[in-house]
Amino acid sequence: MSEFDLIRRHFTRPTPGALLGVGDDAALLRVSEGQVLAVSSDMLVCGTHFFADADPRMLGHKTLAVNLSDLAAMGATPRWATLAISMPAADDVWLAEFSAGFFALAEAHGVELVGGDTTRGPLNLCVTIFGEVAADQALRRSGAQPGDEIWVSGCLGDAALALAHLQGRVILTEDEFAACSPSLHQPKPRVALGMALRGLASSAIDISDGLLADLDHILGASGVGAELDFSSLPASATMRRFLERPVGVQCVLAGGDDYELCFTVAPALHDDVLRIGEQPGRLLSCIGHIVAGRGCIVRDEAGRPITLQNDGYDHFR
Amino acid sequence: MSEFDLIRRHFTRPTPGALLGVGDDAALLRVSEGQVLAVSSDMLVCGTHFFADADPRMLGHKTLAVNLSDLAAMGATPRWATLAISMPAADDVWLAEFSAGFFALAEAHGVELVGGDTTRGPLNLCVTIFGEVAADQALRRSGAQPGDEIWVSGCLGDAALALAHLQGRVILTEDEFAACSPSLHQPKPRVALGMALRGLASSAIDISDGLLADLDHILGASGVGAELDFSSLPASATMRRFLERPVGVQCVLAGGDDYELCFTVAPALHDDVLRIGEQPGRLLSCIGHIVAGRGCIVRDEAGRPITLQNDGYDHFR
Repeated sequence: MSEFDLIRRHFTRPTPGALLGVGDDAALLRVSEGQVLAVSSDMLVCGTHFFADADPRMLGHKTLAVNLSDLAAMGATPRWATLAISMPAADDVWLAEFSAGFFALAEAHGVELVGGDTTRGPLNLCVTIFGEVAADQALRRSGAQPGDEIWVSGCLGDAALALAHLQGRVILTEDEFAACSPSLHQPKPRVALGMALRGLASSAIDISDGLLADLDHILGASGVGAELDFSSLPASATMRRFLERPVGVQCVLAGGDDYELCFTVAPALHDDVLRIGEQPGRLLSCIGHIVAGRGCIVRDEAGRPITLQNDGYDHFR
Repeated sequence: MSEFDLIRRHFTRPTPGALLGVGDDAALLRVSEGQVLAVSSDMLVCGTHFFADADPRMLGHKTLAVNLSDLAAMGATPRWATLAISMPAADDVWLAEFSAGFFALAEAHGVELVGGDTTRGPLNLCVTIFGEVAADQALRRSGAQPGDEIWVSGCLGDAALALAHLQGRVILTEDEFAACSPSLHQPKPRVALGMALRGLASSAIDISDGLLADLDHILGASGVGAELDFSSLPASATMRRFLERPVGVQCVLAGGDDYELCFTVAPALHDDVLRIGEQPGRLLSCIGHIVAGRGCIVRDEAGRPITLQNDGYDHFR
């Protein structure tokens, strides 16, 4: 199978929303009137982000999901993506599964694959994703104000707990692992939530490196600090079993791969957020508030600060 | 050095042409009125596209150059790029050199780096580049008509000849290698030429896999064939020394990494192309013409067809 057969067979689908899709030197995209383009790139590397024997269909899902999560954090409507793949050999079965997982999620979010690259080398997946948003409604990291409430979607730490199990750092029962592993392998990007928060949230970020690390980006960009109430952090039934132990605290506060949204809103908008949270399957939790100054303090139920050894994932630390 | 220090130090420059650049979940870009976005992604992998000991400054140049070349082939004006890097360790000296080469070329073409990703893994560089062009002026692959002239820019095969020397397949003198190696390590994307050909060329492509392979994409997309005159192919003084030997014929017709443009124009526009070719340092050569039917015949001076063992680079063949 040649490089071009491979692209034709696995990565060429109709792209009615693009002027020109896969198959020329560049795709041609027309941005909708009144909208600007939101663009993000994420690279997933075998051995760093996933295991070599990862299920290719789930990997196809996750490769796109982590990028959709960035658009969700901007409040953007997903439109298009490019996908560059480096792989050791053209494995037709693997590619069929990978592309099935990728396109299933793409179609669910109205994303068209409009270009990319395929090349030989160690397995590496790089997606650039394109969304649309009105410039004044985009959810930036820089708008948090002292007094704003801090909210997160979903439950925190399940992906990190599933990974800890796979690495032998904790032992989960079969049922517990089954409950946590979808967060690791098939994260659900909070695209609709991000769109619902347009014009409402004062700042937003998606949690990919861990709550504290990602919240710190909001704090840095906004020039503010935060106080979090540990007991209000949303944790699954499985996660709650581990909350008395350091590994559980670590997973909830600094576990990577959650792909939930963390956002801030003015207290006057509390009820609006509650209404947005009424959607079936959507959980929103108010976990603290923004304060003047810098840094983030997490308090336990007695009001004592909780400290962590490592506050988030960093590739080069 | 953390991942975020690395981005701040090496990859964060002012982006006055973007609404929002590096440092949020996504960049925000406003496409100019009346223009559409041209988007292309290219991935360069250590061991496949470059040697592990490649000069990082030249590699920074080439990483962006191959992407600019795709925009040139669409006739688009370069605007923005994202860069995702996977590397085994955060090497500050290497990154300083790489980013110097990348930004020197970016600034020469008015390209702003607006986002990307840095992660740990085997060395891999993935750029997505964004340009602007009026939808009806974009140079597609699909517009070639029987009777159209086929043109190429620059000289062909020098990059492949330099690579053949590095791989011990030919032996060049020091002067000859010095003359050829810039084509391999520091290709000049033909951005201004692509822009000049807007509304003039009936089709265009950049030559990255070799003349015949890339011309074949035009032929396939346009549903036409071609006849080329070997003696009219532009070859450097060094290349001409090898034209009597199979390796030379192979380099000129099927050498990769040229990053010249191949384009077609109606014969009535011949003089317009000559005028565009008058720019200092710009060489344009008419090398054949489009015919009805399919396939491409290359004829020697006696009119005999020339055949090749391998008509272009393919990562999986």
